[in-house]
Amino acid sequence: MSPTSPVVCRVALLGFGTVGRSVARILTEQPPPAVRLTHVFNRNVGAKRVDTLGPDVVWTDDIEQVFAAPVDLFVEVIGGLEPAGTWVTRALGGGRSVVTANKQLIAQRGPELVALARQHRCHLRYEASVAGGIPIIAALRDGLAGDRMTRVRGILNGTCNYILSSMDEKGASFPDALAEAQSLGFAEADPTDDVEGFDARAKLAILCASALRADVRPAEIPTRPITSVGAVDFAHARQLGCTIRQVSHAEWADVPGGTLHAAVRPALVPRESSIARASGSQNVVVLKGHYGGETVFSGSGAGGGPTSVAVVSDIAAIARQEPERNGNACARRPSSVDGDSVTPHYLRFIVRDRPGIIAAIAGVTERHGINIDAVLQLPYSTKDALPFVVTIEACPPSRLAQALAEIAAMDFHVEPPVDLPMLSGRGR
Amino acid sequence: MSPTSPVVCRVALLGFGTVGRSVARILTEQPPPAVRLTHVFNRNVGAKRVDTLGPDVVWTDDIEQVFAAPVDLFVEVIGGLEPAGTWVTRALGGGRSVVTANKQLIAQRGPELVALARQHRCHLRYEASVAGGIPIIAALRDGLAGDRMTRVRGILNGTCNYILSSMDEKGASFPDALAEAQSLGFAEADPTDDVEGFDARAKLAILCASALRADVRPAEIPTRPITSVGAVDFAHARQLGCTIRQVSHAEWADVPGGTLHAAVRPALVPRESSIARASGSQNVVVLKGHYGGETVFSGSGAGGGPTSVAVVSDIAAIARQEPERNGNACARRPSSVDGDSVTPHYLRFIVRDRPGIIAAIAGVTERHGINIDAVLQLPYSTKDALPFVVTIEACPPSRLAQALAEIAAMDFHVEPPVDLPMLSGRGR
Repeated sequence: MSPTSPVVCRVALLGFGTVGRSVARILTEQPPPAVRLTHVFNRNVGAKRVDTLGPDVVWTDDIEQVFAAPVDLFVEVIGGLEPAGTWVTRALGGGRSVVTANKQLIAQRGPELVALARQHRCHLRYEASVAGGIPIIAALRDGLAGDRMTRVRGILNGTCNYILSSMDEKGASFPDALAEAQSLGFAEADPTDDVEGFDARAKLAILCASALRADVRPAEIPTRPITSVGAVDFAHARQLGCTIRQVSHAEWADVPGGTLHAAVRPALVPRESSIARASGSQNVVVLKGHYGGETVFSGSGAGGGPTSVAVVSDIAAIARQEPERNGNACARRPSSVDGDSVTPHYLRFIVRDRPGIIAAIAGVTERHGINIDAVLQLPYSTKDALPFVVTIEACPPSRLAQALAEIAAMDFHVEPPVDLPMLSGRGR
Repeated sequence: MSPTSPVVCRVALLGFGTVGRSVARILTEQPPPAVRLTHVFNRNVGAKRVDTLGPDVVWTDDIEQVFAAPVDLFVEVIGGLEPAGTWVTRALGGGRSVVTANKQLIAQRGPELVALARQHRCHLRYEASVAGGIPIIAALRDGLAGDRMTRVRGILNGTCNYILSSMDEKGASFPDALAEAQSLGFAEADPTDDVEGFDARAKLAILCASALRADVRPAEIPTRPITSVGAVDFAHARQLGCTIRQVSHAEWADVPGGTLHAAVRPALVPRESSIARASGSQNVVVLKGHYGGETVFSGSGAGGGPTSVAVVSDIAAIARQEPERNGNACARRPSSVDGDSVTPHYLRFIVRDRPGIIAAIAGVTERHGINIDAVLQLPYSTKDALPFVVTIEACPPSRLAQALAEIAAMDFHVEPPVDLPMLSGRGR
């Protein structure tokens, strides 16, 4: 594009899975100016080889052959911490730029790798590592750079959103919705990373750095699984004008460098909110800026097409020789990270019905200075496993935890109580 | 931000209205690295002057004083074609960069001004000229640069969206909704630019250049006013699962350089679509990419805060001395521009009721090979002004126009028939 950069940028593609194939397709069909794909690396590369990339591309399963070649830019779409981390480090350490879609690597080692790139005067870009096809890193680096972000919130895991949307629409149980998602390819055989929130918290850690300039490791972010959410919760949530989503949320509690509130967890959100409207496997990111207010981005969070557009956009930017400005190089360590947030809560109980249960619960909440907002009971016939919901007004999390512990110790429960925060506001 | 750009970028602010004041506030409270506000120009500047910008800022109503000073970057937030156009041209012609929020200027003269900036090795940026706080130009320039956009669609005028939302929610008539919007400051005393679609088509012309690489003037884009839409249309639209919005739409008919379909007009959109969900004065832009599919951006389309974030982000990018890459410098002229699109249509009639009206209409549509999809009649008592709706399947626009002309000539109409396209799909 730029008339001042006639030098060709030689690109090696590490990984030829779904994303890698899609990146290669775009680089072949409409390569950005001054970009040439020269190498494709994959294990068992013979089985992967396709003719469409032309005869000049070197196919190899020997990473040393790639490092020995005059490659300017490594595109890492292998995933996982190793060997990807070793190879990215080696490329940057040799002054060669890297574009990666690797959320775990950037979430775990982003600031270190950005510093390494800076030291060796090369580039590291990772738009594809968070929210797939949504150009959120670009928006933060460029169009919103004049603002100061105060909060980031979103739907960052398409699998959880697919499962929860399906439970909402079809009244399905969690195991049934998970099985359906697995059969359709929206969830993996081992769904732990998704349903426990580990996938979303890696992406949230990257957004903490890019949006809030907060240097936080994924393991520091409290997560709660979506497995405790049942069909009965969607029925009650609907009565409250809400649905339930896995929400990733982060904001500085007071000043940057102090406490960071950050969590990935199921929460009630108003049906009219941007977050509730994410359907199926979509992702949504809602940024709140000090000056500009809320901006909402939504699109495909995964998939070869959207992810590879993000990768190729990063390649194009490096080929244009843009100056580096990775925001998280100047990110601050929070003094602490907690999942606390003072919001109203939804408490769901399943009990063996007998007189005095509501009074017992209300007695505990009153003693802890917690106000009950509403008691909801849908028409159910099973007295021996009766679900009902108590919503409470916003209160300090520690007080709620104490009250809940006392309530959970009572003898009428059929299942452990479920508590979910209730988020409000347009973007929530 | 960049350690390699120690030179200070001296900024003159032309215009100290809502946006100008907000830009000055950000530049004072958290100036981007290496940026210094040195001049504020406004007519009757004495009445505008505030102390918060510090003693070093020169306030003036003499534009010659600004041009004579060592200013590196002109921020133009005056609006209108003149004198803004003359001053922007003069700045760029002197090798001084410009950031503007002026949609009319960029829509009318964008390619020429981009070429001028390139010729004089300075920068022209205009993120704020379209969709206010939504960083759409940045997203197209950076995070989505690897894709090829095939369609752009959106809500680009907050005033129309406020009026139509209000008609939908409150059942208000157009005049009442307009009056309310005017009293609340969401519409101007002379609302022509907004309700006729002239404001939206200027922004659409800018998006045509940035997203589709189509060089088109605002006056070439067909527009239809929203004034023909009545409360009765929202009632019928609801029966169809739709609402009514002023939709701006553009796509290449076949190949870039051929016919461009582009229009700004009221249309029926599914209630569940991103476009229908824009509430109040919000803006939405839905981009469809060849590789990445749909990405949706929403946020404040106007207002001092969001607009000034876009302006300051552009200032920061220029101060970082980023290489220029204004996409529309390589935009193509379409061979023709038309508002045609083959979609289902909604036809609303208000008639003096008598037997045989539906049969007469159906006779005409049948003769033109147009299929009727449904006939809708809400319970009304006034036989002398009875509204009803006919929806028809997608057909060539010329055929529909002929049929409608014949129908409109019939003697039972109390008001001229209203026809609106019915858009479908998630983003529509």
